Amino acid sequence: MDGDQFRTAAHAAIDDIISYFDNIPNQRVLPTIPPGYLRPQIPASPPQDPEPWSQIQADVDANIKPGLTQWQSPNFMAFFPATVSYPSILGEMYSAAFNAPAFNWLCSPACTELETVVMDWMAQALGLPDCFLSTSANRGGGVIQMSASDAVATVMIAARERHVQRQAKAEGLKEGTAEYEDRVMELRPRLVALSSTQTHSSTAKAALLAGTRYRSIDVRLENDMALTGAELRGKLEELERQGLTPYYITLCFGSTNSCAVDRFAEITAVLSEKPAWRAIWVHIDAAYAGSALIADEWQYLAREFAEGVDSFNMNMHKWLLVNFDASLLYVRNRHDLTDFLDITPAYLRNPFSESGQVIDYRNWSIPLGRRFRALKIWFVMRSYGLKGLKEYIRKGIALGDTFSGLVRSRADLFEIITKPAFGLTVFRVKAAASSLRGANGDGDGDGALPNGSTVAQVDEKADAVTKEVYELINSRGEIFITSTVMSGIYAIRVVSANERAEEKYVRRAFDIIVDTAEEVLRGAKN
Amino acid sequence: MDGDQFRTAAHAAIDDIISYFDNIPNQRVLPTIPPGYLRPQIPASPPQDPEPWSQIQADVDANIKPGLTQWQSPNFMAFFPATVSYPSILGEMYSAAFNAPAFNWLCSPACTELETVVMDWMAQALGLPDCFLSTSANRGGGVIQMSASDAVATVMIAARERHVQRQAKAEGLKEGTAEYEDRVMELRPRLVALSSTQTHSSTAKAALLAGTRYRSIDVRLENDMALTGAELRGKLEELERQGLTPYYITLCFGSTNSCAVDRFAEITAVLSEKPAWRAIWVHIDAAYAGSALIADEWQYLAREFAEGVDSFNMNMHKWLLVNFDASLLYVRNRHDLTDFLDITPAYLRNPFSESGQVIDYRNWSIPLGRRFRALKIWFVMRSYGLKGLKEYIRKGIALGDTFSGLVRSRADLFEIITKPAFGLTVFRVKAAASSLRGANGDGDGDGALPNGSTVAQVDEKADAVTKEVYELINSRGEIFITSTVMSGIYAIRVVSANERAEEKYVRRAFDIIVDTAEEVLRGAKN
Repeated sequence: MDGDQFRTAAHAAIDDIISYFDNIPNQRVLPTIPPGYLRPQIPASPPQDPEPWSQIQADVDANIKPGLTQWQSPNFMAFFPATVSYPSILGEMYSAAFNAPAFNWLCSPACTELETVVMDWMAQALGLPDCFLSTSANRGGGVIQMSASDAVATVMIAARERHVQRQAKAEGLKEGTAEYEDRVMELRPRLVALSSTQTHSSTAKAALLAGTRYRSIDVRLENDMALTGAELRGKLEELERQGLTPYYITLCFGSTNSCAVDRFAEITAVLSEKPAWRAIWVHIDAAYAGSALIADEWQYLAREFAEGVDSFNMNMHKWLLVNFDASLLYVRNRHDLTDFLDITPAYLRNPFSESGQVIDYRNWSIPLGRRFRALKIWFVMRSYGLKGLKEYIRKGIALGDTFSGLVRSRADLFEIITKPAFGLTVFRVKAAASSLRGANGDGDGDGALPNGSTVAQVDEKADAVTKEVYELINSRGEIFITSTVMSGIYAIRVVSANERAEEKYVRRAFDIIVDTAEEVLRGAKN
Repeated sequence: MDGDQFRTAAHAAIDDIISYFDNIPNQRVLPTIPPGYLRPQIPASPPQDPEPWSQIQADVDANIKPGLTQWQSPNFMAFFPATVSYPSILGEMYSAAFNAPAFNWLCSPACTELETVVMDWMAQALGLPDCFLSTSANRGGGVIQMSASDAVATVMIAARERHVQRQAKAEGLKEGTAEYEDRVMELRPRLVALSSTQTHSSTAKAALLAGTRYRSIDVRLENDMALTGAELRGKLEELERQGLTPYYITLCFGSTNSCAVDRFAEITAVLSEKPAWRAIWVHIDAAYAGSALIADEWQYLAREFAEGVDSFNMNMHKWLLVNFDASLLYVRNRHDLTDFLDITPAYLRNPFSESGQVIDYRNWSIPLGRRFRALKIWFVMRSYGLKGLKEYIRKGIALGDTFSGLVRSRADLFEIITKPAFGLTVFRVKAAASSLRGANGDGDGDGALPNGSTVAQVDEKADAVTKEVYELINSRGEIFITSTVMSGIYAIRVVSANERAEEKYVRRAFDIIVDTAEEVLRGAKN
């Protein structure tokens, strides 16, 4: 394919992409194809001869589009959003064209340097404390990772090494000796990584990858599933009694189930109580909800990271219009990564890296090579401007408030399980509606149970009804939602915060949920 | 940016990309900007208001292009190539548009299913044994990873868990119990990962990440730096004496320094000698040279992987025209990954994944989310056809032969250090040229030393001269090459296998090297 052929092909692809986006609201959000749909449509072996672009693009239409889940659909209310915007696509085009594995500065200086600049831009945009800027005196800084799971694995492994290597050095052992290696090996098996039960599974997976123990800490509905200082202290004391050594904790800024926000100030206060606890690496996982920090009214939360927090990550590829992958990881001290992840062989040595003047991001992450992901972030930030990004985030939060307000208005049918937050509402269908037609419920709209408790109680009948409603809705495919289980309660999660979200879709989704709940409850009654 | 604005912007970007590619041969291969060049050119803070695309694209010209290293330049002869082609860029455009985090099948079935299909296509194209096909009875299969370093880290961690968990189970312990966890923790510190000294640093880094010991095995110039069966046996016996447990080995199919190919058949024969050695996970790292398998004449090498090899990876993003990232990882038994990397919480459960009918690639890798990378591979394979890809790979190998022939023709000036392979020539400048003008050297063109040895000997003067030549060439910037140190010998690496490589550039590079060597040697003489 030469330049002219590429121009023709790319123009056709761009028209196709625009028409794909224009048609998203009319598409079914979940595809209807069965598992294994694709293989019979594609030749069993690769072609011997070149095929023209027109044939390839026709097959994208025929074979690929029917198998897509429409994450940009306004009817996509499952998981968390995964947004993309036109400027982000332009960023990917240039990133592919400027292809470089970028494992060090020299591999393409622009790739490294723009990453440092946009990470500092985003730190400012999110209102993060100055300690996370690349220009900070404490040598903080940010790096773009593929996903929050990479980010968590990276910092957990660095935390493991920081812990055992500091200990071995404190004992007077010398790095590179057999005694040092043995001692480090001896120390690792006592280590325990921590998080609340509400933390994304990537923390448990990171502990598996790091080869350390992992303990989750129970949290409670009455605290909206946020981890408290007292709960953490209880776990730390229990581990002390067991002779285990906590070395790392993930705190949630917007948990996956319910967007819970752990009590950062309480927790860092507890961790400051003992020297051993002060050595614990504190990571904030703000994968989804961190995007809300772009709006000034949420930045008070980020101010709590100024002390006692080692690292922070958020995914622009969830809620901030940059397509997957764009997970931003910030550390307070870059040496916490580079001292433990740097292995530089002869063939990667060069005067620039040796001088310490430049950043080699390969020592800030698990993979050595990396894409030029800073471009799409730069393009999106400039195309929207901070004003545009704030407006967009506030719209998503407001639509969530609209939806949770609707759910509250039908307290006869629904019960809210945790405090709605960041566009997400978690609720269940009541086992027996107060009135199948009425709209009052218990009147106060807080989803409280008749026994006066303001906290949802385990209720197997409600679980069964909620599950049936959930499965019926997804099988019909007009909207796509997810379910979860928290504190033994089966619940539905609805989040509508992607770029095409609008009030009419949120209201329609609510009507579908009401109708389906009434249908199921009527069926249960008959 | 709406659809019409995107069309206009994308057309401008495409024209810019085409003209960028057309001009690459006229560009300096290495940029001249100093470290830190970019920050003063960009505002210290992100803009409040949206900026038009025309301004952003102008800044790509002004700020980004001057900081690019031209990996697509025919004068780029450093590291290994990192190629991109127009069909691959089209793949990235669609991948961004069809954005989905794709952590399970339901997230976008096309994303998972096309990945399985193209991985099977590539297994066939590379002549891999059938055991690596997704349709194999042994439940093999392939997954796209970001880079070889991720692939190696993934399989090493899986190997660690396979080893200790099998052992704990063999001892009658039950998964999920405290005794099981304690035993697994107790076993890990004795584990040792292995590779030759010539293996890419990602193996040492993976051992650091996995938290296990790592030992490298010395190899010799007389074997062209290939690991032999006898050398491996020696190391395994030494580890036995030390009470350590080897659990994993990376074998090179094209080492980073010199494209050495370890002696697979000898090694798997040694590993079959003892039950404990048979349990070692064998991984083949073919990151660069694996692309040569697309040409039938190299496929005899892949047939050696039919027995005794657990996993294999190669990077299409090096030599096969797919832009970074596209690292293909194949395993003989997918359960070796999924049994040890799967952590499935409630919110990721769905009837399709539960049924076992579909692949959830998140359990085949470190990150949970993933991009739709199969598209660009599909586009490239179809646009070139196998014929086109074979022709392109053969051209790169032939150009390497031309270059190594030129080096041999000046045995008065140069000494070849290891057998040239896969387009790569590794050589040094002799400390004192036999004749600064002559072209005969010792006459047999094998770079042999005057003492009759056919293996290069350590020679500090040659090291100094070679280093000076290397540094002068890169500082002048007409071509970009890399250096390395092997068996104590400082050497220059030249590889010319990217898409724009041509004989005239290879000959010009050789002339530059000759001229610079003569200049340095003349200076040393004066």
